[in-house]
Amino acid sequence: MSKSSKYNGDDIWKNNVEKINSELFTLTYGSVVAQLCRDFNNNYHEVNNQLDKMGYNIGLRLIEEFLAKTGVRRCQTFRETSEIISKIGFKIFLNIVPTIENWSSDNKTCSLILPEPNPLTEFVELPITTDSKISKELWYSQILCGVLRGALQMVQLDVDVNFVKDVLRGDDRTEIRLKLNKVLKDEIPAGED
Amino acid sequence: MSKSSKYNGDDIWKNNVEKINSELFTLTYGSVVAQLCRDFNNNYHEVNNQLDKMGYNIGLRLIEEFLAKTGVRRCQTFRETSEIISKIGFKIFLNIVPTIENWSSDNKTCSLILPEPNPLTEFVELPITTDSKISKELWYSQILCGVLRGALQMVQLDVDVNFVKDVLRGDDRTEIRLKLNKVLKDEIPAGED
Repeated sequence: MSKSSKYNGDDIWKNNVEKINSELFTLTYGSVVAQLCRDFNNNYHEVNNQLDKMGYNIGLRLIEEFLAKTGVRRCQTFRETSEIISKIGFKIFLNIVPTIENWSSDNKTCSLILPEPNPLTEFVELPITTDSKISKELWYSQILCGVLRGALQMVQLDVDVNFVKDVLRGDDRTEIRLKLNKVLKDEIPAGED
Repeated sequence: MSKSSKYNGDDIWKNNVEKINSELFTLTYGSVVAQLCRDFNNNYHEVNNQLDKMGYNIGLRLIEEFLAKTGVRRCQTFRETSEIISKIGFKIFLNIVPTIENWSSDNKTCSLILPEPNPLTEFVELPITTDSKISKELWYSQILCGVLRGALQMVQLDVDVNFVKDVLRGDDRTEIRLKLNKVLKDEIPAGED
């Protein structure tokens, strides 16, 4: 993986991060989504927004741990950034390594394909059928997009992050689309309420 | 630890549970608490209730994984149950082992003392000072009480579970009190809304 090969996500995962049982996380996250669905009367667009905001605020904090644990330095290209996200970021936080596909010709847009099972959705039973309102509107794991957006913002990358497919909706795979808008000047973003 | 010594929480934790980074869990749980504080306009008693309900519903599910992973059989005494909770349950879900203290003379009430750092509160910054409303009323990690109550209910134990001290509030330690009310007949409890 080119320059990012000097960082070893497996080693960091094994030796340098505190861990808890993933099912406890899965069920706790499920409680968050259920709570938001109640709070917003099943307005799933608003639930997606709230999960994204939560994730954004988490990302602003998580990047500190990421940089401290990994020693990763500024990437030279967005391709390198995407490799670091997949092989180091996802690895050391969720213990999965998404594949990276569908690069646009300008190298500013790509997809992360999450391996199954997605640790956020494993074991979770939802009233989702392929033609129901919830499955058309809710992006259950949207918090991940917010985390990526927030973390990348802290390293001066303005990136749009969105789900375009989710196995939970009956899609053939779970796919997050990343689009680099611009490289920011050094500035600290404010948390979102 | 008497009869429970045939089960080894360390081995199960190392070899037989899926894991994620604990800081991701810590921050996600922090988002849940913050969301509930907003939902209930800083009525912290209600926030405690909601966290307890969330935990209860998680506990109803988590006990299945616990029994499947550990092979633990019905305990003969509540002392044995408490050992299993501490050395197997807390170990394989949160990778901590609380100490058990303060047994009542009838062997029906005891305390779990959580080691620091508590994985639910590590790194979290809260506007808690020792004389503020939030620190007098919020039990930040209340979800744990609900999890224990729900999980124990599923093995026919009706147990009251409450925090009595929390380092986050400025107490000298974090202490959960367990009180066995009765051993239930075999019945499946319903989830709480």
